[in-house]
Amino acid sequence: MEHVRKASEHDSNHTRKTIFSGIQPTGVPHLGNYLGALRQWVDVQDNAAPNTTMIYSLVDLHAITVRQDPKQLRQWKKESLSMLLAIGLDPNKSTIFHQSDVPAHSELMWILSCQASTGYLGRMTQWKDKTANEKDSSEKLKLGLFSYPVLQAADVLVHRATHVPVGHDQAQHLEFAREVANGFNHTFGTDALIPPETLISPAKRVMSLTDPLAKMSKSHPNPKSRILLTDSEEVIRSKVKAAVTDSIDGITYDPERRPGVSNLIDILYHTDSRSAYSSQEESAKDLAGRSMRALKERVADTVESTVKRIRASYEDLLHDEFYLDRVAAEGAEKAAKSAAVTMKAVKNAVGLA
Amino acid sequence: MEHVRKASEHDSNHTRKTIFSGIQPTGVPHLGNYLGALRQWVDVQDNAAPNTTMIYSLVDLHAITVRQDPKQLRQWKKESLSMLLAIGLDPNKSTIFHQSDVPAHSELMWILSCQASTGYLGRMTQWKDKTANEKDSSEKLKLGLFSYPVLQAADVLVHRATHVPVGHDQAQHLEFAREVANGFNHTFGTDALIPPETLISPAKRVMSLTDPLAKMSKSHPNPKSRILLTDSEEVIRSKVKAAVTDSIDGITYDPERRPGVSNLIDILYHTDSRSAYSSQEESAKDLAGRSMRALKERVADTVESTVKRIRASYEDLLHDEFYLDRVAAEGAEKAAKSAAVTMKAVKNAVGLA
Repeated sequence: MEHVRKASEHDSNHTRKTIFSGIQPTGVPHLGNYLGALRQWVDVQDNAAPNTTMIYSLVDLHAITVRQDPKQLRQWKKESLSMLLAIGLDPNKSTIFHQSDVPAHSELMWILSCQASTGYLGRMTQWKDKTANEKDSSEKLKLGLFSYPVLQAADVLVHRATHVPVGHDQAQHLEFAREVANGFNHTFGTDALIPPETLISPAKRVMSLTDPLAKMSKSHPNPKSRILLTDSEEVIRSKVKAAVTDSIDGITYDPERRPGVSNLIDILYHTDSRSAYSSQEESAKDLAGRSMRALKERVADTVESTVKRIRASYEDLLHDEFYLDRVAAEGAEKAAKSAAVTMKAVKNAVGLA
Repeated sequence: MEHVRKASEHDSNHTRKTIFSGIQPTGVPHLGNYLGALRQWVDVQDNAAPNTTMIYSLVDLHAITVRQDPKQLRQWKKESLSMLLAIGLDPNKSTIFHQSDVPAHSELMWILSCQASTGYLGRMTQWKDKTANEKDSSEKLKLGLFSYPVLQAADVLVHRATHVPVGHDQAQHLEFAREVANGFNHTFGTDALIPPETLISPAKRVMSLTDPLAKMSKSHPNPKSRILLTDSEEVIRSKVKAAVTDSIDGITYDPERRPGVSNLIDILYHTDSRSAYSSQEESAKDLAGRSMRALKERVADTVESTVKRIRASYEDLLHDEFYLDRVAAEGAEKAAKSAAVTMKAVKNAVGLA
């Protein structure tokens, strides 16, 4: 049965993997962004099989669904690209590009707009939340806030992504992308679009340092609630020191009753590269007799050791405009090539070409 | 005061005119399309001042807001391009292109989606008509049917059109384009977009031959209701002969009480190239004593003389695929260049570039 084991043409097509993910270029990422998503991008890249393609996009077209200051957005785009490189994404291994540099995202968005029903979009959780918050319902809300799930679907589908790492709050949008892809393929009798699978990863949800019941977030008014990947050692130590915990004696891992302490143990567990512990509980057991201050010191140490290299690399990159421009241009070119294959098939299926 | 009369740099910029118009490639145009819009495109081209730019688009991205058979759409696109050339549009004078060949239309559409409010779009007459017709309200209607006025605005604005010839039913959409342009410019402190003016033309509304109270339309179930620009002389004569008139004696021009006869006089007036009459009424006076049969014969004569050259030219062009492909490619290139200037200014204003 020797021949069965040989990888055939068909097998190698079948196991082809394209991973797509995007992040809005709206400020320096915090530790929650890094541990929850960005570090996974680097892990995927560094452990990828030979026929895996990684495509990572700075989704600036999504950033403008809410009002942005143009100067600020321009600066954020540069900072975000620097950060993706600083955390270890390698433009020779991964395609890294600004979404607005590749018109095919908008082109496919329009074509899919002619397939997606307004009813389905109106039932999306995030739209319902927005209309519920607005006094005069949806009246003044911009079309982009209603239609952006279609652009998100286009982002993934235009690159024929097979796997998409998503957070819990994005699962509904990926399901929408799958339905749009299946609907399109069915309507036009084609396989031009590939319904993507969700890339499952161990949940690494980092909570706010000042309010450990809420997720660490870039929009929280208190900057002490989050650690930025650009924070100095001094700032990191002071933020961790000020983190909200509790007055219970000793260290235990109990996210429900001790959210602050457990969040610190989570951060420690995920940032301690030399750790031999197989779980947060195990890690907590070893710390059981220590003081809160000692825990915080260890957390600050491991966070600093994680952020240190990123911060230094980021500072170098941010000022190398020539290199950043070249990476962006080359990334856009690779992404445009990837998208062109899909757009040709899509336009053919629809009868536009 | 000699210097006042000299055309300055500023004056010549000020009098720069860009005319944009689009037509859906969804079948061979009928006499109503020709007299109501397409002939005006040719007139504008042939009488244009030196600093006038004409941009005419086959708006295939609009055609797909309703379900199209892909093979049919592909064929229609070819036929429509042949027809634009057959009626006298000259690719050396006018930019003629398929909308889907120029991604900037979709790109600007998305950016404007982030400015246009869903409330405004929901109040558009054509959307209200559609939701009123659907049993389950807007539930199953596609996003494209809701958002297409934004694409229409992008079509015009991406080429910095100063003048747009529009039919009565499109006036609301052009007003929308103006508001979007002004809103965008105000929000971003830019003059990247130009609010276009409506190009007024003497209304040439051609009515159905079988139902003269309704506009001649490509969607009417009875093909005898319309004369196609590809109809043979025989077909034209038989359709005009069968046109609904009335049993009142003699020929008078009275659109209200004699819609059928008056529609024939309208057609005669607009297709008789040798006519010396300055109005339909004058033309009718001269025909007063004739029979309905004689009127119809004269109408068939002038329509045939109008359609004859177009029909012959169309047949030649339709089979010259090489030439059609070249015209489409060169048109797309010119249109892309025109759009690139706007997109650069728009992306800069928004902070995307």
